[in-house]
Amino acid sequence: MKWKTEEIPIKQLATGHNLSIKTHTISGLDGPHIHIQASVHGAELQGNAVILKLMEKLKEIELHGSITFVPLANPWATNNKHGTYTYGRYNPVTGDNWNRNYIDIFQIYNDELKTFCSQLKNDSWATIKKEFKSFLKSTIEKHMTELEMQKKISNNNKLNLFLQKLAAKADGILDLHTGPTATRYLYASDYAEERAKYLLFKYVLIMPSVFAGAMDEAGFMPWIHLQNTFKEIGRDIDLDIESYTLEFGSEETFCMKSATDDVESIINFLKFKGLIKEEPKTIISHYSKLENYQTIYSPAGGLVDYNISPGDMYKKGDVLASIYNLSTLDPEKPIESTQEEIKAIQDGIVINRCPSSSVHEGMELFQIMRHTYTK
Amino acid sequence: MKWKTEEIPIKQLATGHNLSIKTHTISGLDGPHIHIQASVHGAELQGNAVILKLMEKLKEIELHGSITFVPLANPWATNNKHGTYTYGRYNPVTGDNWNRNYIDIFQIYNDELKTFCSQLKNDSWATIKKEFKSFLKSTIEKHMTELEMQKKISNNNKLNLFLQKLAAKADGILDLHTGPTATRYLYASDYAEERAKYLLFKYVLIMPSVFAGAMDEAGFMPWIHLQNTFKEIGRDIDLDIESYTLEFGSEETFCMKSATDDVESIINFLKFKGLIKEEPKTIISHYSKLENYQTIYSPAGGLVDYNISPGDMYKKGDVLASIYNLSTLDPEKPIESTQEEIKAIQDGIVINRCPSSSVHEGMELFQIMRHTYTK
Amino acid sequence: MKWKTEEIPIKQLATGHNLSIKTHTISGLDGPHIHIQASVHGAELQGNAVILKLMEKLKEIELHGSITFVPLANPWATNNKHGTYTYGRYNPVTGDNWNRNYIDIFQIYNDELKTFCSQLKNDSWATIKKEFKSFLKSTIEKHMTELEMQKKISNNNKLNLFLQKLAAKADGILDLHTGPTATRYLYASDYAEERAKYLLFKYVLIMPSVFAGAMDEAGFMPWIHLQNTFKEIGRDIDLDIESYTLEFGSEETFCMKSATDDVESIINFLKFKGLIKEEPKTIISHYSKLENYQTIYSPAGGLVDYNISPGDMYKKGDVLASIYNLSTLDPEKPIESTQEEIKAIQDGIVINRCPSSSVHEGMELFQIMRHTYTK
Amino acid sequence: MKWKTEEIPIKQLATGHNLSIKTHTISGLDGPHIHIQASVHGAELQGNAVILKLMEKLKEIELHGSITFVPLANPWATNNKHGTYTYGRYNPVTGDNWNRNYIDIFQIYNDELKTFCSQLKNDSWATIKKEFKSFLKSTIEKHMTELEMQKKISNNNKLNLFLQKLAAKADGILDLHTGPTATRYLYASDYAEERAKYLLFKYVLIMPSVFAGAMDEAGFMPWIHLQNTFKEIGRDIDLDIESYTLEFGSEETFCMKSATDDVESIINFLKFKGLIKEEPKTIISHYSKLENYQTIYSPAGGLVDYNISPGDMYKKGDVLASIYNLSTLDPEKPIESTQEEIKAIQDGIVINRCPSSSVHEGMELFQIMRHTYTK
Repeated sequence: MKWKTEEIPIKQLATGHNLSIKTHTISGLDGPHIHIQASVHGAELQGNAVILKLMEKLKEIELHGSITFVPLANPWATNNKHGTYTYGRYNPVTGDNWNRNYIDIFQIYNDELKTFCSQLKNDSWATIKKEFKSFLKSTIEKHMTELEMQKKISNNNKLNLFLQKLAAKADGILDLHTGPTATRYLYASDYAEERAKYLLFKYVLIMPSVFAGAMDEAGFMPWIHLQNTFKEIGRDIDLDIESYTLEFGSEETFCMKSATDDVESIINFLKFKGLIKEEPKTIISHYSKLENYQTIYSPAGGLVDYNISPGDMYKKGDVLASIYNLSTLDPEKPIESTQEEIKAIQDGIVINRCPSSSVHEGMELFQIMRHTYTK
Repeated sequence: MKWKTEEIPIKQLATGHNLSIKTHTISGLDGPHIHIQASVHGAELQGNAVILKLMEKLKEIELHGSITFVPLANPWATNNKHGTYTYGRYNPVTGDNWNRNYIDIFQIYNDELKTFCSQLKNDSWATIKKEFKSFLKSTIEKHMTELEMQKKISNNNKLNLFLQKLAAKADGILDLHTGPTATRYLYASDYAEERAKYLLFKYVLIMPSVFAGAMDEAGFMPWIHLQNTFKEIGRDIDLDIESYTLEFGSEETFCMKSATDDVESIINFLKFKGLIKEEPKTIISHYSKLENYQTIYSPAGGLVDYNISPGDMYKKGDVLASIYNLSTLDPEKPIESTQEEIKAIQDGIVINRCPSSSVHEGMELFQIMRHTYTK
Repeated sequence: MKWKTEEIPIKQLATGHNLSIKTHTISGLDGPHIHIQASVHGAELQGNAVILKLMEKLKEIELHGSITFVPLANPWATNNKHGTYTYGRYNPVTGDNWNRNYIDIFQIYNDELKTFCSQLKNDSWATIKKEFKSFLKSTIEKHMTELEMQKKISNNNKLNLFLQKLAAKADGILDLHTGPTATRYLYASDYAEERAKYLLFKYVLIMPSVFAGAMDEAGFMPWIHLQNTFKEIGRDIDLDIESYTLEFGSEETFCMKSATDDVESIINFLKFKGLIKEEPKTIISHYSKLENYQTIYSPAGGLVDYNISPGDMYKKGDVLASIYNLSTLDPEKPIESTQEEIKAIQDGIVINRCPSSSVHEGMELFQIMRHTYTK
Repeated sequence: MKWKTEEIPIKQLATGHNLSIKTHTISGLDGPHIHIQASVHGAELQGNAVILKLMEKLKEIELHGSITFVPLANPWATNNKHGTYTYGRYNPVTGDNWNRNYIDIFQIYNDELKTFCSQLKNDSWATIKKEFKSFLKSTIEKHMTELEMQKKISNNNKLNLFLQKLAAKADGILDLHTGPTATRYLYASDYAEERAKYLLFKYVLIMPSVFAGAMDEAGFMPWIHLQNTFKEIGRDIDLDIESYTLEFGSEETFCMKSATDDVESIINFLKFKGLIKEEPKTIISHYSKLENYQTIYSPAGGLVDYNISPGDMYKKGDVLASIYNLSTLDPEKPIESTQEEIKAIQDGIVINRCPSSSVHEGMELFQIMRHTYTK
């Protein structure tokens, strides 16, 4: 069991100071590699508490494999304050969502991937995996070098490509996030739906295996491309690499006590992946397809009284929130006349809600799971 | 019982749209006048819920006096978003705290006040009160006109002077605020300490009767100046005018259910002031002098695990919060080595805490009452 | 010549106030319809001055056609201040670029388009155009209704769909923008490259006729889809509809004097389109393909001394800017040792530059045209 | 001639990174000490260019004295971006103006000052000066320690007290700022009015020698208190210590070419102070008392066409700006009907103007000098 710490400058500020990322890698006996990062969205802090708890647990465990931890993976975003709150979801200069600008690298380097596959067509899956990880890493490096030479590397690119490169050697990628005001839930890709249960999340969103710019997708897409390219030349591959986004409650919160429970999710995943030699457990969870995950946008501006909390189930017709429009207030009429109720169109579960009761028309009120199923 | 609603444009935006304030005045039988405003700090919403509940209550009550309500008293601030949160405490253009730019009007028009007092020296307190209210109002109006003519009226001036003018006729001024993440508490001036108990707040801060720019002070200072000026010419006056800041919990929250309890504070005050003909009750509360109300600034940057909640009492030596500095993280050492504990230097009560766990050196962690006493 | 003004509420704020858009339509004799909007990016103001100047000009002109003007098309964005500057390019809550969330409506309603084309296959182009405009409008309306019913309409959707719907009947769409610190330049789609010269811009970017979320694309894409769908069923169509983005200098600037020159661009376009019965003129301009339009991102954080201005040409090897990293300052060494020069890799023209000299690594320094050609 | 560089951590960020300040001190032959700092307001960059130029000049000069340079004196503020611009004037968390929270240290430690004066009553001015500098420094240090022990040190305190302490030994303090969109001008205190001419600024504001929280005042106030306290015990002192704020044009600008001229101001001051053994020159400048320096606040919201530039003189009745309110636009009326002209009430000189043409009611349009005099 050996720890190795590295510090990488990731953003030089106008004053010349460098913000850096520190990675901590633990290596045990032979086994798979896991990549765990937290706080790519700067206000989403709880993943760091989970990492601290996991590091503590690893002191008592014999690890069959290795893990790289990247706490505070986006220091500029975590440090960026407007008022007391952290404006950490979007680049404050460009508006870019920090988790929507990763790159689907083999969409760019598709010919190179085809060559790779035709060369390794007859090799064992173990060999292919090993070779592909280093091919993936070198392809990302090549891409970075080309961008740099042309001064085309934006800060988003630099951070995202650095994290993608770091995760290239992983058999499991865990991107630790939180919602705004939120319950705990998991994003899993459809090809890994059956394995998602080992993460022990009560709520699971199943998304298609396509690319929309997020880290979890940037983690599994190279392997999906690999699988597809091999299929074209007649070889079927069963992927045993997974990439998840784990949502640990609400933003702006860092709580070591809650982390004691939260860490069980990852411990169990390590058992499933074989890094810890114990039987993983499973739980019954609520699943929903991403297409059934809906954002309810506020139809009006007003002060919002939220009637339901993240993690709550509701029935069709239930009042989810009431919006008070005080510009229409007439003290001689019942209060209800200043109020618009947001009623559920069908049954569902609240996953996120807006952390503010002051809401403009068109802002997100809730994100809800519909057409859920349990298993 | 008669309601009167007025709409006053308060800020014209760059696009030419006007943001306006609506005031609602209820007039019953003869009696004192009360001024109630909410949301001068734009993210502090709960006062509006309290106003709605109070309006509802007033439907069943015979009122001996009149009340002016000013919900959403600072619409620009309430509408001002950076991310999901409301940047409502400071003017986003000038940084000015919206509750620190009121004017101590008789510091400017001191000669006029002296003339006023010498003229009414032998009148009854009832007459003086009546005349002084209209003198106060006309003095504010004169001041506004002079500023306007010279194009010296900043947006802060306009809003603050409008509210001061509106409150000029009040025998009681209630400025409804909230803290960041906060318990419910009251600011009262020392001359009214004995009367503060009628507001039924569990925690009360007693501040000196001097001017520091806030609305509550702008409410009582003219009367303090009146009292002092009369004293100079040999007449003692007992003030029966009060001006309070009521802090109803945490910002960004609007909850009608909590407002059902919150409104009892004001109902009881109306009983005390004689607008409702019932006996007011009192409670035993925790008091602290403003000089013993302390802000604890973070001695370090880091992720903060808050160990204690607003409204909690603590003892000397208790850990109030732990600050984790992840840049010093060494996974081979105990977690505690990355952590700095904030320990209480003496006994106290937490009133506010920072709503974010991501904290830079020098940011406010807590506001605490020390040397508290109960009565 | 008849003017018609309409006011449409576009965003209700948390306080209940509505921000609205005013449209002004002038109708003359029969002829084409032109849609002109300004300030979708809130800080980009000069288009409004151009609109004012054009309205003035129209008083002396006989118009063969009609024009709809939409000044201040995004009032929330124009009113949104952080400090003295306007944060108007991105939605302050969601980070969305206001000019990247329009919808390619017939990608969604492709079947309906096919039906439309097969029904009108044998009609005249004049009839098709007329019918298609109303089909386009009703399709957008249908889409909006569906989103609204499901509370899926974000504020971006509402604004963008409103503008798309309004422009549905136009034969020419002019979206008036500015750069950050910028010269005047034009975005034109490749199918209309030969006609772009009538806009009289010295610098012209030619972009492919594909959809990337901007208004100009949302303007021409329905027609491109129409053309393609007709082609599939054997009919070739020559499009005589154009949609441009006109960039009138730098943001935060509103200058009526410059608008006197700027308006000539649109006047000439109206001549070309036949709304003004005069011969349009043309000029020789510098063109560049969008693929050759490059953003230079800062390779370092520092204080930037810009050596070249928007509108300037430069040669390979020229120093475009010097970045001073004061954290490396050693007063005993030459100043040059704290400095990194950004040298041109090839010849080009500066179109935009960053309006601040305080720049973090990865921020945009310049946008440049390369491989330019004149005609 | 010897350079000494020091690096002092000034703000630890939430991620644990430290932002630091670097000071560079040059020591030559015996002589006075000068303190020069830049960018306490984060977007005000030109002072750094001036410092670089001055460092270059000092290579060719024999210096009789010493100078401490503090470029980028407030790194958190310089690094703080909202959009492309720097939100550097106010603390983004607390709204505090970074140049209004210095401390008038001997208002707090007045008794200690009295003791000091009575002890040195009969010493030479040279001795007093020397002793007072070290007394001033140790008093600031004592104050900082007390605040720190009680966790009362906010980030503003830390930065401001650090700079005050650093400047304690100076005979001349130059605080380099810029305006928003501005001409070059100087703030000088009334006691040093006759000496201000050596700074070679064309526009000079004379302010009273009282404390309002700024660095220049924090620089001279200890000496004013010293002078007053000695006066009380019967000794008159002629102060030969000065403290100025130098405003070098517009914010967000860093231009080495302009710095070549700007630096002449400081070079000449060094001659006047005797650090450079050459005769200083003087120029005829425009002076105005601070009470005659007026901010013109916008009486309306709208788009502003500025008719006059910083540095321009104007006559009573001149139009300074026109405000266009597009919500009142009626295309059938003359453009003038949407417009309000801001006319000068009396003669004056424009010093600053708002850098944006999008202006809300109550925002600052101009800062102007009135009742100017030349000498």
